[in-house]
Amino acid sequence: MTPFKLTDEFIAEIEQLIETHKDAALKRLLEEVHYADVAEIIDELNEDKATYLIKLLDSDKTSDVLTELDDDLREAILNNLSVKEIAEELEELDTDDAADIVAELPDEIVQEVIAEIEDKEHAKDIVDLLRYDEDSAGGLMAKELVKVKATWNVLACVKEMRAQAENVTRVHSIYVVDDEDILIGRLSLKDLLTASNTAQIKDVYIRNVDSVKVNEDPEEVAKIMSKYDLEAIPVIDEIGRLVGRITIDDIVDVIKEEAEKDYQLAAGISQDVEADDSVWELTRARLPWLILGLFGGLGAAAIMGNFEEMISKHAILFFFTPLIAAMAGNVGVQSSAIIVQGLANDDLKGSVGNRLLKEMLLALLNGLILAAILLLFTWFWKGAFLTALAISVSLIAVIIVAGFIGTFTPLFLHKRGIDPAIATGPFITTSNDIFGILIYFWIAKLILGI
Amino acid sequence: MTPFKLTDEFIAEIEQLIETHKDAALKRLLEEVHYADVAEIIDELNEDKATYLIKLLDSDKTSDVLTELDDDLREAILNNLSVKEIAEELEELDTDDAADIVAELPDEIVQEVIAEIEDKEHAKDIVDLLRYDEDSAGGLMAKELVKVKATWNVLACVKEMRAQAENVTRVHSIYVVDDEDILIGRLSLKDLLTASNTAQIKDVYIRNVDSVKVNEDPEEVAKIMSKYDLEAIPVIDEIGRLVGRITIDDIVDVIKEEAEKDYQLAAGISQDVEADDSVWELTRARLPWLILGLFGGLGAAAIMGNFEEMISKHAILFFFTPLIAAMAGNVGVQSSAIIVQGLANDDLKGSVGNRLLKEMLLALLNGLILAAILLLFTWFWKGAFLTALAISVSLIAVIIVAGFIGTFTPLFLHKRGIDPAIATGPFITTSNDIFGILIYFWIAKLILGI
Repeated sequence: MTPFKLTDEFIAEIEQLIETHKDAALKRLLEEVHYADVAEIIDELNEDKATYLIKLLDSDKTSDVLTELDDDLREAILNNLSVKEIAEELEELDTDDAADIVAELPDEIVQEVIAEIEDKEHAKDIVDLLRYDEDSAGGLMAKELVKVKATWNVLACVKEMRAQAENVTRVHSIYVVDDEDILIGRLSLKDLLTASNTAQIKDVYIRNVDSVKVNEDPEEVAKIMSKYDLEAIPVIDEIGRLVGRITIDDIVDVIKEEAEKDYQLAAGISQDVEADDSVWELTRARLPWLILGLFGGLGAAAIMGNFEEMISKHAILFFFTPLIAAMAGNVGVQSSAIIVQGLANDDLKGSVGNRLLKEMLLALLNGLILAAILLLFTWFWKGAFLTALAISVSLIAVIIVAGFIGTFTPLFLHKRGIDPAIATGPFITTSNDIFGILIYFWIAKLILGI
Repeated sequence: MTPFKLTDEFIAEIEQLIETHKDAALKRLLEEVHYADVAEIIDELNEDKATYLIKLLDSDKTSDVLTELDDDLREAILNNLSVKEIAEELEELDTDDAADIVAELPDEIVQEVIAEIEDKEHAKDIVDLLRYDEDSAGGLMAKELVKVKATWNVLACVKEMRAQAENVTRVHSIYVVDDEDILIGRLSLKDLLTASNTAQIKDVYIRNVDSVKVNEDPEEVAKIMSKYDLEAIPVIDEIGRLVGRITIDDIVDVIKEEAEKDYQLAAGISQDVEADDSVWELTRARLPWLILGLFGGLGAAAIMGNFEEMISKHAILFFFTPLIAAMAGNVGVQSSAIIVQGLANDDLKGSVGNRLLKEMLLALLNGLILAAILLLFTWFWKGAFLTALAISVSLIAVIIVAGFIGTFTPLFLHKRGIDPAIATGPFITTSNDIFGILIYFWIAKLILGI
């Protein structure tokens, strides 16, 4: 496969063809292009041209394109489509993707759109899915699955499956249910292929089946599926009835979004912005953290104001405040990042006490090495050994406290049910700046005996 | 399914049973436990107990357990197993997992272990896989796949598949090859189920098949598979022959590792450490970044030393240096994180010039708001309007420069083929600290006319 590479020339060609209404040429040009690539192309067009293309191409391709588009553009395009055109797109989609699109439509047209869907079973499934919280297993699942009854034999099962499989893009597992629709097991396609036609399902199915409840947290579903290497997992309701299934491609998206959210939080960006969002959206995501940092800086300035009497004899102490703040911030972020990651991967073992003790040890070791470098440098630079010693000893204390705060805060937040990822980045940097500078001046004052 | 929850009591019970050699009870207790959970249990045991359990349990379970264990513990256990025992474990594994384990064995026993594998075809596949770079599609792929020739009919194909499928844990796609083993298309299990028995494969197969080259970068494979929602992708060699396939569960691991690496780099931790690594390993990962920060702080101190003459009349300027450094650092990390993420997702559009311009605009907007708050606060606190103005104006300049450096650096590194993720965290914070403080004093000096 030659991977598709989007070029400015290609976009220009598409735009040219749209402007001159060369419909046949456009269709021919895009016929062999994968929908994910068509979505990339359309993301580059303005609203009118994008709508033009969506209306022009077949709905079996455009429906998938719609699910891949940037949210804002999709909303704009849907606004330009008729109720009937939207219903045609939904007809082609799996129920989970269709439900996601319906959830974005203005309330007043939802009913009309649903009524226009010809496949009534499909419409019903979409409506069912709308009831679930977006942020739950129910919100992720699709209704498309292949299920058989335990009382059937293999031949009947293969026949029924052929019928059901027409509606299912990818068959992962065949779920086995009892007469009440309660999930009781599974059957792999492979088992079915290798079993004799007259065998009874109840004699060949596997009783041990992983499943998740409809109200399960998506992150938890992601953990289960990746831990047990599952490619699909059935979803059951409160009384164990099979209501849907979640596939790994949706879970890949959950994992990526989760990682992006943590990364952005660590960088001081409230979740869910992209480089191409507007200046205003980016400001809203970034400014609150900067204001937090600003107040931290004001706090640090106030502390230094309190030690103003030291400035005449020990101006050098004030020169090192950015260094102290930077080291406190860096150590804090390092410690908290390791804890946040350990919590996310469920691999923090041992007690909180042991963990804090280990971080103190680590901080002490790092602090001693860094303080030694600092001591030598400052001593040679300014020649004042006692001042250099005071600064270096303070640095060790600052690093230990920063490590403690960085380790303790995410563990504490996690225990209180708050996402520990907010404790990385500006939050930890700012509090460590303040504590760091306070400790620094306090210890320096003690040693220098002022 | 009741998800497995590891408790201290359960570990204690297992340890007790191992100490008293209650083999039958141990086997019974762990019989129904999933291998991923058994791996979690074994990760909690010491080397001797872990080895005892691995030797006790059946190799069809322990082989999978081995692949999930912590690296250090796996190495220790393998050291305690005989050549024959290792070969038995490898026999049960898919070729990709088996090759990963063989790659970790000491060179001197590799040949013996391979010779002990009874299934010669399996042994040959493992040896084949050892040739590929771990960090390539070839290093990720497995040899287990189902392939059919275009010249067969559906019935022959189903028969052959039943035979092949015995060795393949999960059948994703059936790959169609020509007489030279060149990959020419695919067939879904569904298509096979719904086609008539006498149809020729060449009439029903899908000619359009995604594939990757053996030497493709794993991150690129991950992008392709997640963009096109693929659950498996065939791997071809330089002349197009089908040599293996990569499944989505391996790609989920690649995505997670990549996200963790970026997250750790942003936090100033050289990749690949966990909370449970030793203090020494953690120090090696963290100390270099702290030393970088230390030298940045020394640079800042040297700059402030150059402006020492201002300290008598404008001590307050020095009180605000941690604030300036923090704001420069925060803005830099925010800008670089957004660029790094955009580069990772391939969704940065437009020219570098436009991107820098946008970031300048954003920085100006944020800077004005923050400077206004700072101005009011400082004015009321110290009553010196001109000083407050000087500090606030400097802050705007510092934020704009920090945004510029944060945006430009990752773009520049990416263009030079260097991982832009190293430009987040301490690297950007440190350089922004220095530039920020330099600009701050320089502008303040201009305005205050000293």
